[in-house]
Amino acid sequence: MSARDVIDAAVADIRPPDEAARDGARGVQSRLTKPAGALGRLEDLHVWAAGLRRDPRPTVDRPAIVVAAADHGVAVERVSAYPQDVTPQMVANMLAGGAAVCVLADHAGAEVHVVDAGVLVDVVHPRLRRVKVRAGTSSITNGTAMSRDDAETLVASGIDVARELCDGGVDVIGLGDMGIGNTTPAAAITSVVAGLPASATVGRGTGVDHVAFQRKLAAVERAIEVNRPDRSDGIDVVGKVGGCEIAFLAGVAVGAASRSVPVVLDGYPTTAAALVADAIAPASRGYMLASHVSAEPGHHFALDHLGLEPLLDLRMRLGEGTGAALAISLLRAALRLPREMATFDSAGVSRSTGETIAEA
Amino acid sequence: MSARDVIDAAVADIRPPDEAARDGARGVQSRLTKPAGALGRLEDLHVWAAGLRRDPRPTVDRPAIVVAAADHGVAVERVSAYPQDVTPQMVANMLAGGAAVCVLADHAGAEVHVVDAGVLVDVVHPRLRRVKVRAGTSSITNGTAMSRDDAETLVASGIDVARELCDGGVDVIGLGDMGIGNTTPAAAITSVVAGLPASATVGRGTGVDHVAFQRKLAAVERAIEVNRPDRSDGIDVVGKVGGCEIAFLAGVAVGAASRSVPVVLDGYPTTAAALVADAIAPASRGYMLASHVSAEPGHHFALDHLGLEPLLDLRMRLGEGTGAALAISLLRAALRLPREMATFDSAGVSRSTGETIAEA
Repeated sequence: MSARDVIDAAVADIRPPDEAARDGARGVQSRLTKPAGALGRLEDLHVWAAGLRRDPRPTVDRPAIVVAAADHGVAVERVSAYPQDVTPQMVANMLAGGAAVCVLADHAGAEVHVVDAGVLVDVVHPRLRRVKVRAGTSSITNGTAMSRDDAETLVASGIDVARELCDGGVDVIGLGDMGIGNTTPAAAITSVVAGLPASATVGRGTGVDHVAFQRKLAAVERAIEVNRPDRSDGIDVVGKVGGCEIAFLAGVAVGAASRSVPVVLDGYPTTAAALVADAIAPASRGYMLASHVSAEPGHHFALDHLGLEPLLDLRMRLGEGTGAALAISLLRAALRLPREMATFDSAGVSRSTGETIAEA
Repeated sequence: MSARDVIDAAVADIRPPDEAARDGARGVQSRLTKPAGALGRLEDLHVWAAGLRRDPRPTVDRPAIVVAAADHGVAVERVSAYPQDVTPQMVANMLAGGAAVCVLADHAGAEVHVVDAGVLVDVVHPRLRRVKVRAGTSSITNGTAMSRDDAETLVASGIDVARELCDGGVDVIGLGDMGIGNTTPAAAITSVVAGLPASATVGRGTGVDHVAFQRKLAAVERAIEVNRPDRSDGIDVVGKVGGCEIAFLAGVAVGAASRSVPVVLDGYPTTAAALVADAIAPASRGYMLASHVSAEPGHHFALDHLGLEPLLDLRMRLGEGTGAALAISLLRAALRLPREMATFDSAGVSRSTGETIAEA
């Protein structure tokens, strides 16, 4: 199958949520020993997951976080506070278990899968998956990040990896990213897809100063002007002003959705991947959960465009899937409640006297 | 020792945060493989806990949630959507493991301790602690909730229970409440302490309709007018317009702080207890963590008065310690990071090139 065929097949496989399972979940919630709605967004998470998993009381038994790493040609414009050699160093750190995402994934009981989607230097490690078709992008300020073929191949690789994980039992996938300079393509994608000026989508990333911020702003403006991506064509957008890990993660989102597996977004670059996935497969949007809103100012515009309300706001701006890990832990808690709580009948607890009060 | 002596001794034992441990925690954070500040509030939690635990890398090994239950005389004014027999029914449900707090506490690895601080009916169970000095409060709309002696005894009992738990190894205590009608005294306490009209502090609790809401509003206004509590005297406030579980939980907060153990608040009634604890022992405030802001509108005023910013906003309004359980899980995650993440040096990761960029 060609990359295009893989993508088309996955898009066609995405089902709408199962309304019967959602109704069943609402029924379960109404019988649990608590006032109706008192568990707030934990109840919403349950109903949402029930529809996607087609089960009124779904579980999350085997969560995974897929962290994709790549380098960015635009980094030569010094848009980041870190040198590019940090990308492979952090890949190695993740494989050794020393990165923040490793700790938070373990806290959530989630596996971490690290993928080289386009790192400049080859990291050698038995657990590193390599899907790269090029060693990083070209600078988006004077041409496309990559060819259309490369973009399709990376999206198809993401679909393949997601499907392999889901077919092996993974039942929720968190997205994580590592790539020095990647809030610049994230801002460019958000500007293109949401139709916003760079001044709304560019932030300080890992912590650049005012001068570097101005360079980053100019880089995003130039990238869009030079490349003129077609916002209705996700492959065009990510190929022209995106990044290799962003293209791959867009594929992971589409692939997970095609297997009825929820996708937990992390920060700005993974949400840019979600914007691309949504452009490729609008039905994938329903499978997405926004874990948190990052301190990067453009992130909330990207989430708004997807109609997603973040679960957490902890002023995090690390990426790697760290926010996704925290949200997966919350999701697991939310899904335990309908399976483990007593019902009014089983516990002999009286129901609301709402009717009587309404008459008073 | 008299109850007053127990309270005075605990208040005197509360130490200010250890600045050296806080500085040590900041130093640890600066060496971890992530941009400075990129873990947002997780870093703040670490520094906060370090100061209280007097350890630059503190752990939470044995969290506990203390759920105090009691009945409220004001319930005869039909301020709740539930009948009063739900209080003992839910106490039994908690002891059987079927309540929401049991599931979420287990998710957080926390013990649940259920305390009868003043339930009308006696629940018999080997794991139920009984500290009650009276079977619920008198209605606050035509006199005091309880005598000053009763209030002091309940606060002292809370101190005793907290100290016993801390001396046994518990290293963080979450507060939980169960008491049909208890958002009414919570609103009265918040109005008195924060100097706000009842219209700002009264909400719909477990879900009452408009007519019941008006009754609740009138009850709070009458309670304050009839009793005229002295806002600078926590015992006076909780004895006149409070509740037995609120007095007890105020004592738990003071007792935990006196043992350098952090206290995690839950919803409106536990935050009312925190207001009382703060009035009794202003130094206890530094030991408090606001887990979440509940859907009950007065809750954020109570948190504002304490200068606390909630970690979560999940539109929960259940109580029981459910929000505290979720925050304890986050706190544990936050405290694992400085112990388990690699440092720039250990992982061979390059530091920020911020200086160079600043010159560009």
